Amino acid sequence: MSPKRLEAFSDGVVAIIITIMVLEIRPPDGAGFGGLHSVVPKLLAYLLSFVLVGIYWNNHHHLFHVVERIDAAVMWSNMALLFCLSLVPFATAWFGEHPGALAPVVVYVAVQLACALSYFTMTRAMLRIHPPDSPLARALGSDTKGKVSLAAYVAAIPLSFVSPWIGMALIIAVAIVWLIPDNRVVRALDAREHPPGS
Amino acid sequence: MSPKRLEAFSDGVVAIIITIMVLEIRPPDGAGFGGLHSVVPKLLAYLLSFVLVGIYWNNHHHLFHVVERIDAAVMWSNMALLFCLSLVPFATAWFGEHPGALAPVVVYVAVQLACALSYFTMTRAMLRIHPPDSPLARALGSDTKGKVSLAAYVAAIPLSFVSPWIGMALIIAVAIVWLIPDNRVVRALDAREHPPGS
Amino acid sequence: MSPKRLEAFSDGVVAIIITIMVLEIRPPDGAGFGGLHSVVPKLLAYLLSFVLVGIYWNNHHHLFHVVERIDAAVMWSNMALLFCLSLVPFATAWFGEHPGALAPVVVYVAVQLACALSYFTMTRAMLRIHPPDSPLARALGSDTKGKVSLAAYVAAIPLSFVSPWIGMALIIAVAIVWLIPDNRVVRALDAREHPPGS
Amino acid sequence: MSPKRLEAFSDGVVAIIITIMVLEIRPPDGAGFGGLHSVVPKLLAYLLSFVLVGIYWNNHHHLFHVVERIDAAVMWSNMALLFCLSLVPFATAWFGEHPGALAPVVVYVAVQLACALSYFTMTRAMLRIHPPDSPLARALGSDTKGKVSLAAYVAAIPLSFVSPWIGMALIIAVAIVWLIPDNRVVRALDAREHPPGS
Repeated sequence: MSPKRLEAFSDGVVAIIITIMVLEIRPPDGAGFGGLHSVVPKLLAYLLSFVLVGIYWNNHHHLFHVVERIDAAVMWSNMALLFCLSLVPFATAWFGEHPGALAPVVVYVAVQLACALSYFTMTRAMLRIHPPDSPLARALGSDTKGKVSLAAYVAAIPLSFVSPWIGMALIIAVAIVWLIPDNRVVRALDAREHPPGS
Repeated sequence: MSPKRLEAFSDGVVAIIITIMVLEIRPPDGAGFGGLHSVVPKLLAYLLSFVLVGIYWNNHHHLFHVVERIDAAVMWSNMALLFCLSLVPFATAWFGEHPGALAPVVVYVAVQLACALSYFTMTRAMLRIHPPDSPLARALGSDTKGKVSLAAYVAAIPLSFVSPWIGMALIIAVAIVWLIPDNRVVRALDAREHPPGS
Repeated sequence: MSPKRLEAFSDGVVAIIITIMVLEIRPPDGAGFGGLHSVVPKLLAYLLSFVLVGIYWNNHHHLFHVVERIDAAVMWSNMALLFCLSLVPFATAWFGEHPGALAPVVVYVAVQLACALSYFTMTRAMLRIHPPDSPLARALGSDTKGKVSLAAYVAAIPLSFVSPWIGMALIIAVAIVWLIPDNRVVRALDAREHPPGS
Repeated sequence: MSPKRLEAFSDGVVAIIITIMVLEIRPPDGAGFGGLHSVVPKLLAYLLSFVLVGIYWNNHHHLFHVVERIDAAVMWSNMALLFCLSLVPFATAWFGEHPGALAPVVVYVAVQLACALSYFTMTRAMLRIHPPDSPLARALGSDTKGKVSLAAYVAAIPLSFVSPWIGMALIIAVAIVWLIPDNRVVRALDAREHPPGS
C-alpha cells in the first residue's frame, strides 16, 4: 500500500473540512455594521478550529515525510482521524453560536480529544511496522507533546464543568504549544541526510 | 488514457462526498446537553456512511494499484460509481432523520446496491482490457466478496419490508466483511514482486 | 507555466462542482415513500448535469494530454470555463425544482452555452501557441463536434420558447453525441506513438 | 519541508473556496424570469470574487515555481492567506445581498486587505530564506504591484465611507492591474533557463 495516495486523500479531506467550516458563518440579516456583532464569536471559533486543523495537517505532513510503509491498521486509524476531524465543523458551529455555554464547550473538547486519540493511535500503528531505529521512530521519540496534549484534553472535560472558559483555555494552550515548530521530525530528517560523523 | 488522473479525480470526489455528509449534522437549537439527543442517530448514520464510503475508497485504491490501462467503458463506469456514491449523503441525511423508518432504509440500501453494482460493472470493464493472467485478473479472482455483497444488498430490500432493522443489519454485516483487510490484491502484488520460485 | 498544476486545479474544481450539486437534493420532509415523488425530477436534473460536467472533465483530460504549453490566455479561458461550470449547480437546482418551466430551462441552456463557448475559446487560445502539426492541432482537427454543440445550444434558446422540452431535448442530444468516445485525441496520440510508416 | 505538498494543499483549499461561493446563489423562489432580477447582483459579486481568488491562485502558482524551500513561517503565513481567502465567500454573500450598502463593502474590502497583507507577509517570509540573487528574489523584485495593491486597499476603507462605490471601484481597479499577465516571474525563469551571455 502506498503512503502517497493516503496522504493526498487526507490532504483533500482536511482541505474540505478547513474550508466548509466557514460556510457556517452566515452573512448578518441587515446591511449595517451592527449585524457583525453576532458574527464575531463565530469568526473567533472558526479561527481557533482553523488553527487546530491546520496543526493536524502540518503534523500529518511532517509525519508522512518519514513514513516508509503503511498497512490496514494505519489506513483505518488515519480514516478514524479524518472522521474525528470532520466533526470539528459541527462542534465549531455549535460553540460559535453559544460562546461560553457548557455543553458546546464540552462537545468541542470531546471532538478535539477524539482527534488527538486517533492521531496517537495512528502513530502507534505506524511504529509497529517501522524498525525502532527508523527515522519515524526517532522523529516521534517519546512523543511528550502528544501525550501532554492528550492529558490536557482529558483534564479539560471535567474542568469545563467548573468553568467552560477553563476548557477553552486548555484547548488554546495546546494549540500554542503545537504552533511552536516541531523540531523532532526536522532533526530526524537532517540526521538522515547528514548522519553524525559524515 | 491515464489511470492516474482518473484515480486522482475519483479521490477528490470521494473526499468531498465523505466530508460534506457531516454538513447534514446541524448544531442543536439550544445550548444544553439535551439537544444532543437528536444528533446521535444522525451521527451514527454518518459514521456508517463514512465507513462504507471509506471501504470503497480503500478498495478503489487497491484496485488502481494493479490497473494497467483504462478505456471509455472503465471511465464511465467509474463515473457511474462516483454518481452513486454522491447519493450517499442524501440517503444518509434522510435515514439519520428517521431512524428505523421503512422508506429511508430502503432508499439507503438501494443507493448502496447501486454503488456495489457500478463498482462490479467497473471491475468487469477492467477485466475486459486486461489479460487473464494480469495482476488485476489475479487480484480480483472470483470476487466472491463482491458477489456476496451484491446478493446481501439485493436481499436487504425485500427484507427491509419485514423489518427495516434487517436491512440495516445486512448493510452493517457487509461493511464488517469488507473492513477485514482484503488480502487478494496484496497477495497478487507480492506475487508480482516475488514470483514463486524466484 | 506548467499545464500540470492547471490541470490538477481544474480537476479539483470540477470534482467539487460535480459533488456539491447533490447537496441541492434535500431529503423529503416525511419518512414515507410519497416524499420521494418531489425528489425524482431533482435527481434526473442532477444526473443530466453530472453527465454534462463529466463530459467536460473527460474532454479536458484528453485535451491536456496533448497540451505542451499554456499561457495567460489559456489560463484565464480555463478559469472562465471553471466559472461557467460552477454555475451549473445553480441552474440545475432551479431547473430541478420547476421541471418543464420556461425560465429555468433557458437559464440551464444559457449556462451550457457559456461552458461550451469558454471551452471553445480555450481550445483556440491553445491552438495559437501550438504548431499546426502538433498532436494538439491534429487532435482538435476541424472540431466539428464542438461547433455542432455550440450551434445546438444557440438554437436551443429560442426553441425553448416554443417548448421548454425542445431545449432540454437538444441538451440531451448533445450529451449523447459526446458520450460516444472521442477518438480524435486517441488517434492523434496513437499516431505519435506509432507514426505511420514506422 | 516540501513546497510541493503545501502547494497542493493550497490548491485544494482555493479550489473549494472558489467553488462554494456559488452555493450562496440560491435559485429564485418562482419559476419566472422575474426571479432572476435578485440573482444578478449576487452573480456579479461572485464573478468579482472568482476573479480575485483566481488572481491569488495564479500568483501563488507563479511564486511556487521559483520557491526552493519553505519553513514554518512560510507554512503559517500561507495558512493565514488561506484563512483570509476562506472569508471571501462570507464577504461576497453579504455584499451580493446588499449591493452598494456601506458595511458589506467595508467588510469586503477589509477581507481583501487581509488577503493582500498575508500574501505580502508570505513573500517576505520566503525572501528571508532565499539568497538575494535567487530566482524568487529576482521574480519578486521591488514588488511594486503588491505594494500598490496594499495601498489601494488601505485607501479603499475610508473612501468607502465617502461612497461605497469608490471602495468597489478600487477593488476592481486592483483586479484589472493583476489580470494583466505578470511578466516578472516569467522573465526570471527565462533568465535562469537562458542566462544572459549564454
